[in-house]
Amino acid sequence: MTQRPEAGRCFGVGVGPGDPELVTVKAVRVLEECSVVAYFCATRRESNARRVVQQYLRAHHTEMRLVYPVTTEPVAPDKYETLLADFYDESAKRIAEVLDAGVDVAVLCEGDPLFYGSYMYLHTRLHDSYASVVVPGVSSPFAGGAVLGAPLASRNEVFSVLSGVLPADELVAGIAAADAAVVMKVGRNLEKVRDAVARAGVLDRASYVEWATTPRQRTMPLAEVDGRSAPYFSMVVIPSAGALRR
Amino acid sequence: MTQRPEAGRCFGVGVGPGDPELVTVKAVRVLEECSVVAYFCATRRESNARRVVQQYLRAHHTEMRLVYPVTTEPVAPDKYETLLADFYDESAKRIAEVLDAGVDVAVLCEGDPLFYGSYMYLHTRLHDSYASVVVPGVSSPFAGGAVLGAPLASRNEVFSVLSGVLPADELVAGIAAADAAVVMKVGRNLEKVRDAVARAGVLDRASYVEWATTPRQRTMPLAEVDGRSAPYFSMVVIPSAGALRR
Repeated sequence: MTQRPEAGRCFGVGVGPGDPELVTVKAVRVLEECSVVAYFCATRRESNARRVVQQYLRAHHTEMRLVYPVTTEPVAPDKYETLLADFYDESAKRIAEVLDAGVDVAVLCEGDPLFYGSYMYLHTRLHDSYASVVVPGVSSPFAGGAVLGAPLASRNEVFSVLSGVLPADELVAGIAAADAAVVMKVGRNLEKVRDAVARAGVLDRASYVEWATTPRQRTMPLAEVDGRSAPYFSMVVIPSAGALRR
Repeated sequence: MTQRPEAGRCFGVGVGPGDPELVTVKAVRVLEECSVVAYFCATRRESNARRVVQQYLRAHHTEMRLVYPVTTEPVAPDKYETLLADFYDESAKRIAEVLDAGVDVAVLCEGDPLFYGSYMYLHTRLHDSYASVVVPGVSSPFAGGAVLGAPLASRNEVFSVLSGVLPADELVAGIAAADAAVVMKVGRNLEKVRDAVARAGVLDRASYVEWATTPRQRTMPLAEVDGRSAPYFSMVVIPSAGALRR
């Protein structure tokens, strides 16, 4: 497919980890220039990405809510895949209609647009037909390192980002293979993640961080975290051991 | 040690991957508020971090150049370690003198301050004695993904960042163990990195990116890259294969 020059442009805008000041200068400019601001959200829930940039939204903005058909309620895996694929098709179509009218659209993305975010499913559906620009953002692992003051990787160390949803053995292997790591999507996987970090032998330097860079931020040594679950916006940071020695 | 309330604060300021617009709003504000702006650089070379924020520097700023004692010239490994440790000690002392005078210092860092950067060696030396704030930044792997429009990681995929300086076998193992990866510090390791990517079986989806988000930016499939070396600010991006299917 070819891009029509008169169509609008689609921007995937990373809004960073939570602090409205950790939005980039480019993200603020792009938001100002786009008439339509789209974002994913759950039914009856505020979008976190929208909350981050709320102070940058203006009267000229039209908001487009892309409401997930399912969030945490149980759905059979194959049905879930189909539901989501249909939802991304439909969302891309809604955005395409606006772009066809010659209007620029900013799609808000927590953290970085192409890192564990839903924006990528729009990007893959739209970038052949419309000018598509990705504005990278500060991803939450870096916010975790920053609020802890903990070096993430130095010299020739291997740094890995893992999902807490992974099976325990894969978490242990992934953590053990890296010099420094961040485990995202901790949420209801908290106990499994803590056990995996202990089995990998790095519990002593692992920290737990929730809602990094927001007013709700909390940090503590992972070994001291009680309870079986954590908020969705929580992570475990296993900093570089090497950087601290020099 | 304890922190004296009348001392200045030390800010590690991530300036992002190269585009001055990819600096965060917080980084710009912190720069405005600090009287002294420090940065690492090589002898007779402009600092890349300084170039990124040049448009944000003002007449009230005093600049402090922290000039590496060695860069690429050959030095015996043990001597190199000692030289650098002494250099970081001396740099921390220079900054401490300013902080002791009650003046705030911004230390500029390419990308993110705690990700493969020299700032961490100042942070570990200063944060016990002085209020130290890390301003996270957009790290270059995310700039790589953005300029390629290539999803870095989706769902529960493992994402790793590796250094091109690593031995070939470690590169192959690290790339093969991850679903998506970025290899930094490609430079004179270009041939080794390309071979490692091929041995890991992912050459078909690997891209080469140099000077991402700057006017000098170049991207191409890694398989098409000629030559034996690349600029320091180059990377190899192996995007997620999974995200493209949905």
